Amino acid sequence: MNILKTFLAFFLMLFCFSVYASDDTSQLVVRIAKVKVDPKYLDEYLEFVKENGKVSVEKEDGVISLFPMQDSEDPTNFSIVEIYRNQEAYQQHIKTDHFQRYKTETLKMVMDLQLVDMQVSSPELLPMLFKKY
Amino acid sequence: MNILKTFLAFFLMLFCFSVYASDDTSQLVVRIAKVKVDPKYLDEYLEFVKENGKVSVEKEDGVISLFPMQDSEDPTNFSIVEIYRNQEAYQQHIKTDHFQRYKTETLKMVMDLQLVDMQVSSPELLPMLFKKY
Repeated sequence: MNILKTFLAFFLMLFCFSVYASDDTSQLVVRIAKVKVDPKYLDEYLEFVKENGKVSVEKEDGVISLFPMQDSEDPTNFSIVEIYRNQEAYQQHIKTDHFQRYKTETLKMVMDLQLVDMQVSSPELLPMLFKKY
Repeated sequence: MNILKTFLAFFLMLFCFSVYASDDTSQLVVRIAKVKVDPKYLDEYLEFVKENGKVSVEKEDGVISLFPMQDSEDPTNFSIVEIYRNQEAYQQHIKTDHFQRYKTETLKMVMDLQLVDMQVSSPELLPMLFKKY
């Protein structure tokens, strides 16, 4: 009887682990890119960041969000919320032609760049966000 | 003939204005709330911010996003991306019972709060974000 219990406990643990491992949200790569843009390139940078966001979200399954916002008081300060399905999706993203083009072309426009790694506090909220749009 | 042209131009202007006025994205209220939480209340604050986000997005049509993230290096630093349909939706939100409860109960937990008004750089991206979730 004890052996049966041990087996049962073992399989229960295995099951719990597989449920945990298949939980996508635990693998999300989330960060805020804080970009300071040279004012003289603002319009040009805006076009590049919009294009890169649009193409990435459209073409790459692993790019959940590339969402650029600008500080209302100083629109040269960008905060871009980046969410990738997992580390692999991020690594694929930075190899794409559109990202490489964005990176190369905007190099001279970016005066400062900080990448702040984040974690999602409410993964259960994700499916509800922006649905009203 | 000139009168006809003037009328046509007038109605064209009216049409353009109505299209612009009905564009929701121009009225969006967007900001990042940067919240520094007292470490001894972190778990408690987390419950409140998750609950407030969930109830607000579920119950309030005008709340498009209340998306809390935590700094990976220091999880007591929160960045909450808040998006409301318009100023009216925001004013309604802060009067709700759930927001008032969140505000009152977390008052002692919040060590610092900065509200940074933002603008959306790519409104056309909004419907695509988080769709993969």
